[in-house]
Amino acid sequence: MSLYRPRTVYAHCDIPCGVYDPEQARIEAESCFKIIEKYEGNEDPLFRARCVAVKEERAELAKQHISVLWSDYFKPEHLEQFPNLHDVCWQALKQCSNVKRSLDKADARKLLDLIDQIDEMWKKTGGPETTRVAGRPG
Amino acid sequence: MSLYRPRTVYAHCDIPCGVYDPEQARIEAESCFKIIEKYEGNEDPLFRARCVAVKEERAELAKQHISVLWSDYFKPEHLEQFPNLHDVCWQALKQCSNVKRSLDKADARKLLDLIDQIDEMWKKTGGPETTRVAGRPG
Amino acid sequence: MSLYRPRTVYAHCDIPCGVYDPEQARIEAESCFKIIEKYEGNEDPLFRARCVAVKEERAELAKQHISVLWSDYFKPEHLEQFPNLHDVCWQALKQCSNVKRSLDKADARKLLDLIDQIDEMWKKTGGPETTRVAGRPG
Amino acid sequence: MSLYRPRTVYAHCDIPCGVYDPEQARIEAESCFKIIEKYEGNEDPLFRARCVAVKEERAELAKQHISVLWSDYFKPEHLEQFPNLHDVCWQALKQCSNVKRSLDKADARKLLDLIDQIDEMWKKTGGPETTRVAGRPG
Amino acid sequence: MSLYRPRTVYAHCDIPCGVYDPEQARIEAESCFKIIEKYEGNEDPLFRARCVAVKEERAELAKQHISVLWSDYFKPEHLEQFPNLHDVCWQALKQCSNVKRSLDKADARKLLDLIDQIDEMWKKTGGPETTRVAGRPG
Amino acid sequence: MSLYRPRTVYAHCDIPCGVYDPEQARIEAESCFKIIEKYEGNEDPLFRARCVAVKEERAELAKQHISVLWSDYFKPEHLEQFPNLHDVCWQALKQCSNVKRSLDKADARKLLDLIDQIDEMWKKTGGPETTRVAGRPG
Repeated sequence: MSLYRPRTVYAHCDIPCGVYDPEQARIEAESCFKIIEKYEGNEDPLFRARCVAVKEERAELAKQHISVLWSDYFKPEHLEQFPNLHDVCWQALKQCSNVKRSLDKADARKLLDLIDQIDEMWKKTGGPETTRVAGRPG
Repeated sequence: MSLYRPRTVYAHCDIPCGVYDPEQARIEAESCFKIIEKYEGNEDPLFRARCVAVKEERAELAKQHISVLWSDYFKPEHLEQFPNLHDVCWQALKQCSNVKRSLDKADARKLLDLIDQIDEMWKKTGGPETTRVAGRPG
Repeated sequence: MSLYRPRTVYAHCDIPCGVYDPEQARIEAESCFKIIEKYEGNEDPLFRARCVAVKEERAELAKQHISVLWSDYFKPEHLEQFPNLHDVCWQALKQCSNVKRSLDKADARKLLDLIDQIDEMWKKTGGPETTRVAGRPG
Repeated sequence: MSLYRPRTVYAHCDIPCGVYDPEQARIEAESCFKIIEKYEGNEDPLFRARCVAVKEERAELAKQHISVLWSDYFKPEHLEQFPNLHDVCWQALKQCSNVKRSLDKADARKLLDLIDQIDEMWKKTGGPETTRVAGRPG
Repeated sequence: MSLYRPRTVYAHCDIPCGVYDPEQARIEAESCFKIIEKYEGNEDPLFRARCVAVKEERAELAKQHISVLWSDYFKPEHLEQFPNLHDVCWQALKQCSNVKRSLDKADARKLLDLIDQIDEMWKKTGGPETTRVAGRPG
Repeated sequence: MSLYRPRTVYAHCDIPCGVYDPEQARIEAESCFKIIEKYEGNEDPLFRARCVAVKEERAELAKQHISVLWSDYFKPEHLEQFPNLHDVCWQALKQCSNVKRSLDKADARKLLDLIDQIDEMWKKTGGPETTRVAGRPG
């Protein structure tokens, strides 16, 4: 049994912003990917120490963006459409922590894949139409 | 079907910190509760404007603490023990947003109740013993 | 006469991250646009107070993203290619401040236009190819 | 002679929040303690670099929580009751800096002891009754 | 009796930075002063709402700078030289809170006066010589 | 041709704060200078790791202060007076990034020089008179 009783609770909710895009999380995760790539190609200790610190920060930002998508963008009706919504977001957040701990590009790649799964759910629930302001030149 | 494959993925994970306590989220949620109470008892516009701003900030901090508990403290074996873990955490995060939008103490009270449900899961999964450093004088 | 002596100074520079995209600034500016739109359609004072506060924060984030593009992504050779680079970025940053001060959608729209000008320079200087990690499903 | 003239100055003060608990500082200090413990038990350089960085951050948060207790919670009448209030808080803040510089658990333990002294003053000045919202299940 | 035992405890301490200047706190306090001045001269509600929010933020920054001076710059030997050190810093921090609550320029002026008292102690304890890097053109 | 059309656009602008001083950026840059100096004189690995981390943070703060001066303090009429305004600010921001990457005091010194050039423009455009609140005891 779920404690969750949708529709009645959130129907009146309307937050001031309403703009969401998994692209924000993806950009931070790409930074992690590139940092690990650069780390591998440069043995200077100062450079490497900075890579570790900046990767920590970028992975944390990815985490925050994913968390906002999960708690603010996705609604109960989206969970009905994508029953694995919670699992994918949980995995993605935990993968951000893995990326903090890792210097293996495969970990960053796995995070990108999880974000792309969230991205797909965002697209299939109308995210691009309902949350973005059209107009970015192609 | 769940995309989630536990144990093999996270078994090696060991983060540097490991201290978690829902008390952090509760303190911020209590701040929200008290702010609404004080708002009701004071009609000064400056005071009220500050209440709204500080409540926004405190509800955001509650949100961050809940999000960390969900993504970092709770593990797949806890989900098996508490199948409604995801739902309760999701509700709690969404309730933080409701508290931002509201000046009704009942909303802050509901957030406290949800945090107390998380607190119970934290206690029943050994949180106090495994994450805290004993010694706070009673 | 310009004090600026390129190439010799920055040739050795290689930062740990290297991922940039004006999309980050655009998302925040779109938030400002939508907030003003929602403000116009809702006379509740609490809602409006929150709109003003969140808009301030989102415009500040847009400002930070634009500033990073200007100082970190764009290099002297890009300035040769786009002599108005400084002016456009300066205008965009000042327009972020205008958006903080304004409740007129036209101000947010103008900010989006300026960001799109930066976006065009980013694209024409190879930004999508050199800074992003390909793979986001279309 | 003290420049300080209490009662008349602060009598009218009523801040929007009013929730304080040394538990917030303690949790961060416990994190420092556990991080040092884990550091000792793991020679992996990446792990150790992250420990140092996260400890820095946690000690800074402990510092901020202690500083808020000193400047916001404690009032002139509490200083009369506990003449060493300033000294204990000063020591505790300086000990946070020591913990940043140290990899010795004894330093983190000493910080915990100082926080517990603040905790005792908080309890004896009615902190639990006047600042918290009762209701956390025991 | 004081719990404080100086010299032996802090003699080995040497933090990485070592640059302190009450000017940082003063600039934020001056912002508060100017904001209140502008608030008085402009009745536009949006302008006034932003004044209140920015003042809150600036007073908080003043608070943080004062707190760092107290906990990090000032040492036990300075307390011997200035026995009211604790009281002045405590008052200054509490005055930052008063400035958050106030729209009266006299409150901001009082904060400036308290910062100037800290500034005097900083100067008389060798602050300008030991913490700053000479060279700012006069 | 410049896209920039001054006066008409910004004439009505009046932000809530209006206090600016390159001293803020200078203090952070001096911190970077001193950190490198201390790094050179201490071979302890923990100390050095902390130096790198704190320098990163201080250089970032210098960057933010410079960016605010460029985007908020300086107006189109100042650009007419100092046609190299954009170049000097761009260089200074890029030099902050260089200081993050470097352990050479010459890089921090160069940043100080660039900030002093901005300082001179600030002084010659009336900064001390128009933005600060007089009264700091000499």
